[in-house]
Amino acid sequence: MPTKAQIKLVRSLHLKKFRNEYNLFVAEGHTNVLDLLNSPFRLQWLFAREGWVEENQGRLADVDVQQVSGKEMERMSSLKSSSEVMAVFKLPDMPPFNPHAIDDYILALDSIKDPGNLGTIIRTADWFGIKTILCTRETVDVYNPKVVQASMGSLARVQVHYLDLLETLSEIPTGIDVYGAYLHGEPVSQIEKSEKGVILIGSEAHGIDKKYLPLITHKVTIPSFAKGSKGAESLNAAIATSILCYEFRR
Amino acid sequence: MPTKAQIKLVRSLHLKKFRNEYNLFVAEGHTNVLDLLNSPFRLQWLFAREGWVEENQGRLADVDVQQVSGKEMERMSSLKSSSEVMAVFKLPDMPPFNPHAIDDYILALDSIKDPGNLGTIIRTADWFGIKTILCTRETVDVYNPKVVQASMGSLARVQVHYLDLLETLSEIPTGIDVYGAYLHGEPVSQIEKSEKGVILIGSEAHGIDKKYLPLITHKVTIPSFAKGSKGAESLNAAIATSILCYEFRR
Repeated sequence: MPTKAQIKLVRSLHLKKFRNEYNLFVAEGHTNVLDLLNSPFRLQWLFAREGWVEENQGRLADVDVQQVSGKEMERMSSLKSSSEVMAVFKLPDMPPFNPHAIDDYILALDSIKDPGNLGTIIRTADWFGIKTILCTRETVDVYNPKVVQASMGSLARVQVHYLDLLETLSEIPTGIDVYGAYLHGEPVSQIEKSEKGVILIGSEAHGIDKKYLPLITHKVTIPSFAKGSKGAESLNAAIATSILCYEFRR
Repeated sequence: MPTKAQIKLVRSLHLKKFRNEYNLFVAEGHTNVLDLLNSPFRLQWLFAREGWVEENQGRLADVDVQQVSGKEMERMSSLKSSSEVMAVFKLPDMPPFNPHAIDDYILALDSIKDPGNLGTIIRTADWFGIKTILCTRETVDVYNPKVVQASMGSLARVQVHYLDLLETLSEIPTGIDVYGAYLHGEPVSQIEKSEKGVILIGSEAHGIDKKYLPLITHKVTIPSFAKGSKGAESLNAAIATSILCYEFRR
């Protein structure tokens, strides 16, 4: 059973300030918790309802589970309807990103703000075997509970780096392409693609900041099919990212 | 200025029960409101902050705008941070869907539950010029404020029908293909595509119900690129739908 102090601490981790203070974050839900348990993330505490513990005993050989009531889970959860299981992990020590070692496609996000979008982008990157995501420091925090939730366990396999994106992209060796997603560029299906490169996505409201323009080797577009009459002004940022991942892996 | 009774009525429209009782729904935000004003939807009331009215006067020639305070807007809004503008529209009289008149790609949704997913699917369909979406009656209501919000005005151009999907798909003439989205099917980029057809997507938790299987002419898959090691178990339903729309329009 969790102590009152523990419940209070877990609740505080909904906020970035306290995640950084305690060096901990929360993951909720079956897939999220199991995927992160099977990853280099280091577990601090695992809380679960009785039924979940019974069903998953076989997967919990070396894990110390604290059984909790529905009420306790609700108090700790950041979700409207709390899950059967919740884990607290240590924030990882991320090895610094090396711009000279790019050997595949990676994603770069210029200030995605919506937690659902970032989580979905991580999940989709994982599906398409993209292992690295670079984020500006203005991008929503990856350990925000809603990001973790939407990532559906893919944080276990995708490395997300927060850094000075302009400086990092400036250090990328010549010959590595940087594909920027724009509303008006070359149709992405028609460009010649190399074996590796950076796919750069702008924020929901403002797109890619113009300071990145000198570093972009290709402006790419997902063509709209709305004929004649007006259609949607743009695609959602996670949708656009996913279609680009698909197209680069096709 | 809105009356107390008006504010109460608008708030009640957050719930489907009252949307159906009053035959009204709410759209919030600049793009949503302007796109729906320029569509066959019939306006009931338009509420806006002073600044918005000043900036958009040119677009509001024949529209009766009620100026509201920030506090009034907050009370009526379903969003965490309310918008500058909100409109109440009449629920449309939707002409019945005719399965014998399919002359393009259409989407069919087997019980999408997440409002953000449905709204994003409508926005993406609009981008790709897909004008018709069929939904099971178990699919989240398209006039749910979160669906309207995520659709970003595309409801003005995409028709969403709620119907007996099994019966409707059974009536589709031979020769019109039904492409079902599965985790294990033919890679969608490799199948031969006709000029028209139905793209069927399953629910977030359960995929496509097996009762539809006899009606599906092609099981299609978005191949995962995660090599060797385990990757994401699945794609988000809106992401999968969008990649299929892209692939069928490419």
